[in-house]
Amino acid sequence: MAAALLSDFATEIIIPVCAVIGILFSLIQWALVSRVKLTPNGPSKNNKNGFKDSLIEEEEGVNEHNVVVKCAEIQNAISEGATSFLFTEYQYVGIFMVVFAILIFLFLGSVEGFNTKSQQCTYNVHKKCKPALATALFSTISFLLGAITSVLSGFLGMKIATYANARTTLEARKSVGKAFIVAFRSGAVMGFLLAANGLLVLYITINLFKLYYGDDWEGLFEAITGYGLGGSSMALFGRVGGGIYTKAADVGADLVGKVERNIPEDDPRNPAVIADNVGDNVGDIAGMGSDLFGSYAESSCAALVVASISSFGINHEFTAMCYPLLVSSIGIIVCLITTLFATDFYEIKAVKDIEPSLKYQLIISTFLMTIGIAIVSFIALPSSFTIFNFGVQKVVHNWQLFLCVCVGLWAGLIIGFVTEYYTSNAYSPVQDVADSCRTGAATNVIFGLALGYKSVIIPIFAIAISIFVSFSFAAMYGIAVAALGMLSTIATGLAIDAYGPISDNAGGIAEMAGMSHRIRERTDALDAAGNTTAAIGKGFAIGSAALVSLALFGAFVSRAGIQVVDVLTPKVFIGLIVGAMLPYWFSAMTMKSVGSAALKMVEEVRRQFNTIPGLMDGTTKPDYATCVKISTDASIKEMIPPGALVMLTPLIVGTFFGVETLSGVLAGSLVSGVQVAISASNTGGAWDNAKKYIEAGASEHALTLGPKGSEPHKAAVIGDTIGDPLKDTSGPSLNILIKLMSVESLVFAPFFAAHGGLLFKL
Amino acid sequence: MAAALLSDFATEIIIPVCAVIGILFSLIQWALVSRVKLTPNGPSKNNKNGFKDSLIEEEEGVNEHNVVVKCAEIQNAISEGATSFLFTEYQYVGIFMVVFAILIFLFLGSVEGFNTKSQQCTYNVHKKCKPALATALFSTISFLLGAITSVLSGFLGMKIATYANARTTLEARKSVGKAFIVAFRSGAVMGFLLAANGLLVLYITINLFKLYYGDDWEGLFEAITGYGLGGSSMALFGRVGGGIYTKAADVGADLVGKVERNIPEDDPRNPAVIADNVGDNVGDIAGMGSDLFGSYAESSCAALVVASISSFGINHEFTAMCYPLLVSSIGIIVCLITTLFATDFYEIKAVKDIEPSLKYQLIISTFLMTIGIAIVSFIALPSSFTIFNFGVQKVVHNWQLFLCVCVGLWAGLIIGFVTEYYTSNAYSPVQDVADSCRTGAATNVIFGLALGYKSVIIPIFAIAISIFVSFSFAAMYGIAVAALGMLSTIATGLAIDAYGPISDNAGGIAEMAGMSHRIRERTDALDAAGNTTAAIGKGFAIGSAALVSLALFGAFVSRAGIQVVDVLTPKVFIGLIVGAMLPYWFSAMTMKSVGSAALKMVEEVRRQFNTIPGLMDGTTKPDYATCVKISTDASIKEMIPPGALVMLTPLIVGTFFGVETLSGVLAGSLVSGVQVAISASNTGGAWDNAKKYIEAGASEHALTLGPKGSEPHKAAVIGDTIGDPLKDTSGPSLNILIKLMSVESLVFAPFFAAHGGLLFKL
Repeated sequence: MAAALLSDFATEIIIPVCAVIGILFSLIQWALVSRVKLTPNGPSKNNKNGFKDSLIEEEEGVNEHNVVVKCAEIQNAISEGATSFLFTEYQYVGIFMVVFAILIFLFLGSVEGFNTKSQQCTYNVHKKCKPALATALFSTISFLLGAITSVLSGFLGMKIATYANARTTLEARKSVGKAFIVAFRSGAVMGFLLAANGLLVLYITINLFKLYYGDDWEGLFEAITGYGLGGSSMALFGRVGGGIYTKAADVGADLVGKVERNIPEDDPRNPAVIADNVGDNVGDIAGMGSDLFGSYAESSCAALVVASISSFGINHEFTAMCYPLLVSSIGIIVCLITTLFATDFYEIKAVKDIEPSLKYQLIISTFLMTIGIAIVSFIALPSSFTIFNFGVQKVVHNWQLFLCVCVGLWAGLIIGFVTEYYTSNAYSPVQDVADSCRTGAATNVIFGLALGYKSVIIPIFAIAISIFVSFSFAAMYGIAVAALGMLSTIATGLAIDAYGPISDNAGGIAEMAGMSHRIRERTDALDAAGNTTAAIGKGFAIGSAALVSLALFGAFVSRAGIQVVDVLTPKVFIGLIVGAMLPYWFSAMTMKSVGSAALKMVEEVRRQFNTIPGLMDGTTKPDYATCVKISTDASIKEMIPPGALVMLTPLIVGTFFGVETLSGVLAGSLVSGVQVAISASNTGGAWDNAKKYIEAGASEHALTLGPKGSEPHKAAVIGDTIGDPLKDTSGPSLNILIKLMSVESLVFAPFFAAHGGLLFKL
Repeated sequence: MAAALLSDFATEIIIPVCAVIGILFSLIQWALVSRVKLTPNGPSKNNKNGFKDSLIEEEEGVNEHNVVVKCAEIQNAISEGATSFLFTEYQYVGIFMVVFAILIFLFLGSVEGFNTKSQQCTYNVHKKCKPALATALFSTISFLLGAITSVLSGFLGMKIATYANARTTLEARKSVGKAFIVAFRSGAVMGFLLAANGLLVLYITINLFKLYYGDDWEGLFEAITGYGLGGSSMALFGRVGGGIYTKAADVGADLVGKVERNIPEDDPRNPAVIADNVGDNVGDIAGMGSDLFGSYAESSCAALVVASISSFGINHEFTAMCYPLLVSSIGIIVCLITTLFATDFYEIKAVKDIEPSLKYQLIISTFLMTIGIAIVSFIALPSSFTIFNFGVQKVVHNWQLFLCVCVGLWAGLIIGFVTEYYTSNAYSPVQDVADSCRTGAATNVIFGLALGYKSVIIPIFAIAISIFVSFSFAAMYGIAVAALGMLSTIATGLAIDAYGPISDNAGGIAEMAGMSHRIRERTDALDAAGNTTAAIGKGFAIGSAALVSLALFGAFVSRAGIQVVDVLTPKVFIGLIVGAMLPYWFSAMTMKSVGSAALKMVEEVRRQFNTIPGLMDGTTKPDYATCVKISTDASIKEMIPPGALVMLTPLIVGTFFGVETLSGVLAGSLVSGVQVAISASNTGGAWDNAKKYIEAGASEHALTLGPKGSEPHKAAVIGDTIGDPLKDTSGPSLNILIKLMSVESLVFAPFFAAHGGLLFKL
């Protein structure tokens, strides 16, 4: 077994350098976005907003000054609303974080009875390892670090998005291409900041922990898994809380505004409109940022923990050990180059260029990344090594690991394409759904549900093949790096994902600022592409979640000391069937929460329309704050039960029923949750775009269904409203459910192995 | 190990006697129903229709003569439509049956290369067993027998239902109680005929096969499993074909009739009305009859095949071997007594008595059956014996087996109650859904989906506990008898289940015959209770399917010669995740089929309304036949792809990927399909009853939502329409998917074990 080509010293340098490059690049993008000024121009008419293009309002003779001021005002309102909500949310989540940190410390500390003496290692029984108490302490610290990084990721994302939305609106006055660039660059700021930040914090943590752990890598990387748990548990609350917030506002606003009062979406007369726009930022941006950060942290941790008990860890090969981090590092560089294709090498001239441009991002990054992975695999890995595989060491070659990462990467691309096919209104599935609106909302819903179910097929085969290949080559380590492969282009994935809600907000601001309908048309086109990219982002999130969970599950089983998880034993089977039920229980809670909160919102909006004189004429301003408060209160209150379900299930099952049943629960929730999540996301995305297809009226067929306000359009709006909680609350939260239960089980595995299964012991 | 108290001779007599009693009882019920005459009375005004009650039309001064003639006419049309559809369906299914029979013979014959010599037994290696070719032949015969019995069960059920529907309408002129009795007795005819018939055919088959097999019980009961496969494969086509038929017609009729033309449900001017009523009989009656027969046949076969390799089979204890059949025999007697409570011991006086009366049926039968099981367990079983448990013989006591059957029986009752709670409009969940119609169809759908998801929780826990208890006590045999326990009261279950569509049809006939709205109100009340019982029936079907499949799965694993099904091997895991996807793929197909067929129906109905002059005034008759043809063609064509998916998956996976992957697929589809099926059935049932709740306006709250035609009512109609394919096509077909794949795997297990897994062998 030869050593890796790359020296340990070079590895120590490459990782932080790549992370810093990512951060710098995101700052440059931010600087470019900030060139669009949100203050009205002075007398110099030649320098419009930093550029020299002709503006639509000039052509139409509208006062530019007022428009800019109004946009700035609205952006401020949205930003303030979002910041205030996130702070409230973080207060509650903060309490949880502290309580859970104490729980981790106590549970893990109790494994060896809070003994401070060194103990025999778990896997390498001839060696001494650090005491369980140290692992308890360091796990708690890395949990807190992961949680804080996750919160930071979400918060920064939100700040950037609310910084960019009005700027996108203003640029839309010039051309659709210019607006696209602003929205896309802002997405990139978030993507790069998140990817680089996650990598850097993890890298620094490992190096700091190493000061204490020395050559006890088993304990070191066991403690590091807390980072993944912290990241994902914050993501859960972010997704659920944000998801309920945004959809309560959205559904409430639509039901009264669009359906009852017949006013357009985002009309400033609608009292829930600010809450709706705030929601996009706290749910789709902050929630999704935390979510993908969590996936990234967990897959890195899963790979590291398995590597630490394989030959890399046993022989202390630092470079090979850092292989997962090196893949992510090269990913940042690849995404950087890919971004230039959208912002500099290729210009968007018309609406029809938007979707292809975003699609090319996926393709280019995947191609470049394949090369990147090849380089990393051949220089950072010895030509052959061993990987821990449920008790035995399996010999693996570097080209096999290369294939593992690639299969994950390419499976991600396939999932992305399939998602695009099923949710973009350029293809027949969504057009069929739109067509079914002819016979009313019922057929629209039936077709939409069928579409969602159908869209599950290919992604599941893609995931199954990835699992088979990576599992066969390199056991659980293979699956962990396949997940990392899927997430290696996370910066690009996040950029095109965040681009969606930013465009959505931009359209909202255009409407509220009373800008020309031509601007609204442009932002609508950006937004339609955004719906598809959002669905693609969710596809990546769920695909990677499936792989990550399986890797974590494997690590958990190893750590818990069980050799097989036999379906045909009662303990495992009941776990399997109950686990498969959890996604339904969870979805029932979140759907009902959105429904109830939306009903409250509807009552408030109706009340304002009925009691505030002059609201419908636009002479009086509605009371936005009350609607914001309803969304805030509902989401804070309603995020607790689903959160508790996910966080407590592994603890209760592990403690009372033991690790076999818990294994069943993890496997069941994984295989069932993936399906529910994919179908929910795609159904919702398809309904949204079927509605947009009718509204845009861009084809003969679409024209026969429209215009806005026609019976088919009304049916489409109903479908869109139903899809809201499916695609933005239940669906995306489910992948966190899957991952979180696995990582939590892994972190608590030492405790369960020592004291678990109380019921059967009695 | 003491012998059983009951002698083999007594067993030989008890089983057929109970079956014959069941058949006689159903004939008596039929005779009682036929006392309601469908021919108008002569001049004797004192003898109205065989009874002396005052009729509504007499009070209202309507001509009784015309009404009866019209009812008879409509009944004829429905009966003819249903018969003609079933014959068409059976032609296609017949071709499939022959092809599949040949396939079974060839596949199983090839196991030993069509050798006619006796071979070493699979489990008892010291003994000689009959050649594999004989098992191939007898499996094929029992497959055909099962298929024919299933077809017969469905067909007879349909005949009885179409015989009873107009009679129920006519009785509704007297009182709601009288109508209830007719509908319920007709349901009982079907329930008892089916239960007794299934038992008798199975019993005779075993005895005939024994003439050849002699004391080779291993081969004998292996061949008998073909009976279950035949039963369930017919059930699949019955459910899917019938389900598409009925819902295409129902959705199509509602969309144009109720939504566009604003005419009532079942209005004779609606061209799809006959197709709709035919559909209830071919889908809900014939399909469901075949389905439950299939479950019953499979659980018996699963129990018998496991018993044959346990001490019962090894020691040739005939009475103990027949334990599953004895449980079913006593079940018939218990149900007979239970039925008397509804028809003779207790009289329904008002609408509010209907639901409790049906609920008491469940409670009484469960209580009595508990005693029945205790008796059978203590007289038919030795006090201790051994059960085959994946390679080892496990010692089991008779009281443990008693508990296994009981836990299944009581889990069924719990599932029934939970289903009632979530689908009856007497409780808050459905009332909440109805209330959400205030804000339109979107919130109705969101709340309905959430309700369906939530309704999964308790049934899954009930199933999990049954599995845990029965698995721990008596391995796979325990699970098989737990399934039998749940199905032991099948006659009562079917009676209350078939009662639903009969009442539904009765209401349709009342509307079409132009009878007083007071009659319609009565049949509507019967029908609302019927929706709940239908959902309960589906709950039983899916609960028992879960247990049956697991038992069959266990038998398959034993027969295929694998010791463990380890989730953490790539072969099994990919099976698990792909298996969990299959219910979605299947649902996508069936939902889309219903949607497309409904669109065609809508076009035809619209065409008729637009082109046939005088249709809306009722002066011209619509062209019912074309609508019947559309439903027929669509269902025949569309039932093939989902049917092929289910039938081919085990064959393809077993042949190419081998038994480990197939085990994964079975486990995955089981744990995922159960959830989808329960939530789909309950969501649909809840929407239907939420609509009925608004229409009936029986409470203050309901009155604020109604009347018919109000905005909330329109929203409720949309929900009801969406629920139609969920509750009557996709949902109930899924339990057949689960069972069928398991029983097919078991039948083909010898082939897979010998020649399977080609891909991995290469």
